[in-house]
Amino acid sequence: MEDYLARIGPADETAMRAAAERQLALTKPTGSLGVLEELSVRVAGMTGSCPPAVPAPAVVTVFAADHGVHAQSVSPWPQEVTAAMLANFAAGGAAVNAFAKNNNVDVRVVDVGVATPVDQLDIVHAKVRPGTRDLSTEAALTEDEVLQAIKVGFDLADQLVKDGYRCLLTGDMGIANTTASAALIATFTGTTAEAVTGRGTGIDDATLAHKTAVVAGALKLHQASDPLGALSAYGGLEHAALAGYILGAAANKVPVILDGVIAGAAALAAQAFHPAVVDYCVAGHRSAEPGHAVALKALGLQPLVDLDLRLGEGTGAVLAYPILTCAVRALGEMATFESAGISS
Amino acid sequence: MEDYLARIGPADETAMRAAAERQLALTKPTGSLGVLEELSVRVAGMTGSCPPAVPAPAVVTVFAADHGVHAQSVSPWPQEVTAAMLANFAAGGAAVNAFAKNNNVDVRVVDVGVATPVDQLDIVHAKVRPGTRDLSTEAALTEDEVLQAIKVGFDLADQLVKDGYRCLLTGDMGIANTTASAALIATFTGTTAEAVTGRGTGIDDATLAHKTAVVAGALKLHQASDPLGALSAYGGLEHAALAGYILGAAANKVPVILDGVIAGAAALAAQAFHPAVVDYCVAGHRSAEPGHAVALKALGLQPLVDLDLRLGEGTGAVLAYPILTCAVRALGEMATFESAGISS
Repeated sequence: MEDYLARIGPADETAMRAAAERQLALTKPTGSLGVLEELSVRVAGMTGSCPPAVPAPAVVTVFAADHGVHAQSVSPWPQEVTAAMLANFAAGGAAVNAFAKNNNVDVRVVDVGVATPVDQLDIVHAKVRPGTRDLSTEAALTEDEVLQAIKVGFDLADQLVKDGYRCLLTGDMGIANTTASAALIATFTGTTAEAVTGRGTGIDDATLAHKTAVVAGALKLHQASDPLGALSAYGGLEHAALAGYILGAAANKVPVILDGVIAGAAALAAQAFHPAVVDYCVAGHRSAEPGHAVALKALGLQPLVDLDLRLGEGTGAVLAYPILTCAVRALGEMATFESAGISS
Repeated sequence: MEDYLARIGPADETAMRAAAERQLALTKPTGSLGVLEELSVRVAGMTGSCPPAVPAPAVVTVFAADHGVHAQSVSPWPQEVTAAMLANFAAGGAAVNAFAKNNNVDVRVVDVGVATPVDQLDIVHAKVRPGTRDLSTEAALTEDEVLQAIKVGFDLADQLVKDGYRCLLTGDMGIANTTASAALIATFTGTTAEAVTGRGTGIDDATLAHKTAVVAGALKLHQASDPLGALSAYGGLEHAALAGYILGAAANKVPVILDGVIAGAAALAAQAFHPAVVDYCVAGHRSAEPGHAVALKALGLQPLVDLDLRLGEGTGAVLAYPILTCAVRALGEMATFESAGISS
């Protein structure tokens, strides 16, 4: 872990200053590209270059795992859906596949802890254990299991950048993973279970009240505070792997686009390991899940897309990817007032 | 005009019902793709097919013109900037060029009324007259000039669809065009000059107060109500051409993605000519200009992107295009619970 963290440093302020200055010279009124101007400046800072290259190609990695807390009936979906959806991803039939094809993003699927055997699927097999333990009664993971899952994510980020990818997107799949996310977000932001627990992919009022009570009980049981302790207490394996993946993107100085609430929880864990990691994070979208807004506020990130998505898989991150590349392309390719012969 | 309007009919409800039903069968929780689900249903209705083909290729048409009201000092930019920006578009150096290249959208530039001669540029030359008259003292256009400009837009939409384009995006360029837009939006929505007049690409408080007074005075002077009368009173030539282009998209049953406040004003005019035209309109983004929110509300459209853009050119429409194609692709390409072998 120390070796990983030693590779992470803050964004390059010289490149950011140069990018901010270049924005003023481009053929448009100052500030007229709104959020995209700051976004392009941030990418200059991440990559340490101005203008930065368009961050392409891109890959969305769907980290999949199951959750012992599923036994507490926090989700209407059977746990087997996690494995069934992995087969769907592998066959190209899920929403993230459709979005990724549309936006020229490659898809990787990683089993980091699915309960059902998925050995037959053509995906990355890196199962740490078949699902977490039940966070409502015991620690979901040992610290060693957490570190193994972080390593899966970090090493994969290294490999993807070595393979030529210049933008990493987060994806996730795991029935009951919004429960673990709520506990993590409450821990890292100091908020209550009520403020961060939501309906996930769709539960009724009674199940929401029960789910909130489960999260509140777990927070009281574990009283975790440091990132390793929190990931051990609540899991999930995909959260730990995502935290590693986000840290790995930062170590490699490439932007990482966060999807929804699961990525938000993982990013808070990554931030707790090393605060500079947020410099490399772009918030893809605002999920309908209440904990996501809390997480984004704590991360200090503004989402690019806000269209009531609550699916996960990486769909919000993939949807946001062309906005990021448009922002970077404008900075690099637009004429300046001087080059276009227009007096500013 | 009557021939044009006779070609427009409402969206196909049978295709919309089929699309809504298909959404329920796809491998995701019901409603989890948020706004994109309804969007895909709307495209099914526009095109009369389910699932609809991905609306590609796409083209953004930048209609450019000047405004006589520029003489009233409503903008800090000299009128020559319109022509200079046309040269920039033609050379590929503007923001819309960068975004369009990124999102695989072609760019067309049309001179429908630029004051400065631009004969030397490799663009579509369809100048009706070199800028409008000053709307604050007289009618900006004759009704015949309005009809000529509408014809430019409508016939171009016909030609583009004949050339194979399946999605038309609106773009615009014209110093002082937010002034004409404000007058049009106030007219079609029955609101005050104060509610719809904004800072355009950037003016100070004193200029804003003056610009608002100019709009209020013009509304009192002309008291226009029907679409032909309003376009004649306030212009601009790009607004009339855009109204024709939007009507032409509807006549050809292809989606038209609206950019910002200029497109919003033009879409209100098109709606006044034929109410069904809105069935074919997609709001690309929400501009920072206050009149745009008023226009979108009157059109009943929700913007896809909301990132504080206030540039025009079609940038917001181009930014939204991949969201539209993602929505359509998900409807057409995702597995169903049945085909994926998952019990719903």
